[in-house]
Amino acid sequence: MPLTRISLRKGKSPEYCQTLMEQIYLALRETFDVPDEDRFVTISEHGSEHFDFSANYLGIQRTDDLVIIQITANNTRTVEKKRALYAKIVERLVASLGMRPQDVLISIVEVAKENWSFGNGEAQYAPAV
Amino acid sequence: MPLTRISLRKGKSPEYCQTLMEQIYLALRETFDVPDEDRFVTISEHGSEHFDFSANYLGIQRTDDLVIIQITANNTRTVEKKRALYAKIVERLVASLGMRPQDVLISIVEVAKENWSFGNGEAQYAPAV
Amino acid sequence: MPLTRISLRKGKSPEYCQTLMEQIYLALRETFDVPDEDRFVTISEHGSEHFDFSANYLGIQRTDDLVIIQITANNTRTVEKKRALYAKIVERLVASLGMRPQDVLISIVEVAKENWSFGNGEAQYAPAV
Repeated sequence: MPLTRISLRKGKSPEYCQTLMEQIYLALRETFDVPDEDRFVTISEHGSEHFDFSANYLGIQRTDDLVIIQITANNTRTVEKKRALYAKIVERLVASLGMRPQDVLISIVEVAKENWSFGNGEAQYAPAV
Repeated sequence: MPLTRISLRKGKSPEYCQTLMEQIYLALRETFDVPDEDRFVTISEHGSEHFDFSANYLGIQRTDDLVIIQITANNTRTVEKKRALYAKIVERLVASLGMRPQDVLISIVEVAKENWSFGNGEAQYAPAV
Repeated sequence: MPLTRISLRKGKSPEYCQTLMEQIYLALRETFDVPDEDRFVTISEHGSEHFDFSANYLGIQRTDDLVIIQITANNTRTVEKKRALYAKIVERLVASLGMRPQDVLISIVEVAKENWSFGNGEAQYAPAV
């Protein structure tokens, strides 16, 4: 159920992008109780004129390699699980892509379980009636 | 007020895209109490290296024709209305575009009424003061 | 912390886009208690076949210069602050880019403070433990 949208600067290779999507999925599996095969991720590339970010907000030094990751997910996770997700995403992106930890920005948007349809026009997660 | 963002693989014709946007609008009209002319929809195309999805999550067989539809709307609808919306979107996309019901993924993000400005810098839906 | 996503029709100059992103950031600073340097904004361009909007919903006359601005922010602002933000964004875009007030649509999505990581895999805004 998480639907993940990634925004980054133009110019990364297809291999880089595929690894990025895969590693975020794996981090969600490990920390956010996401079931096997629950993976839905998109990437949008932006030129510099369409991608504005602070290079030092909160004292964190960001570069053009910044990835902005917005995850829409059910409103069922504790603060501790969110902390674990952030740490795991960064750990995985550092290990697999050599990313700088400063270059990973994550935003979670939470929704009710009945706010999803995964196909067939049904609300697979809605409470039974 | 619904703001609808659609993500799909590159390669669909302009006619396909226009029908897709129109049919989702009509489904919102029919099931979600959306007023006449309240239509705001964008489509983002993605290459395969920027669009990752599960081909079988929840036992639903998806193809490269998958459309991911994220709708931001007021937090005023019941679970029953959400079920009706999902079913109607799929019904319309099957009938108009021959889509497979399995290839329609829908995500709803809910917000408060005062979270919209439809122009002129005013909060048209906010409670009167 | 606001993460701002702008959608507009293709064809605006880089200077236009940079001014747009800058002016929205300044409006957030002035009305939404946004700290210095807290700026994260993306723009997505769309052809006409991927950008559907009502030219007259609520009696507001929109043109192809419409910008759709979706801001993800903490759920800490009053209705009055939201009204002030809408007015300030429009005031600034009219003054700096000559935009029509009717061509500015704004949507706010609210989240909890612990839903952000601004780098390093940490939840910088989460309550202390």
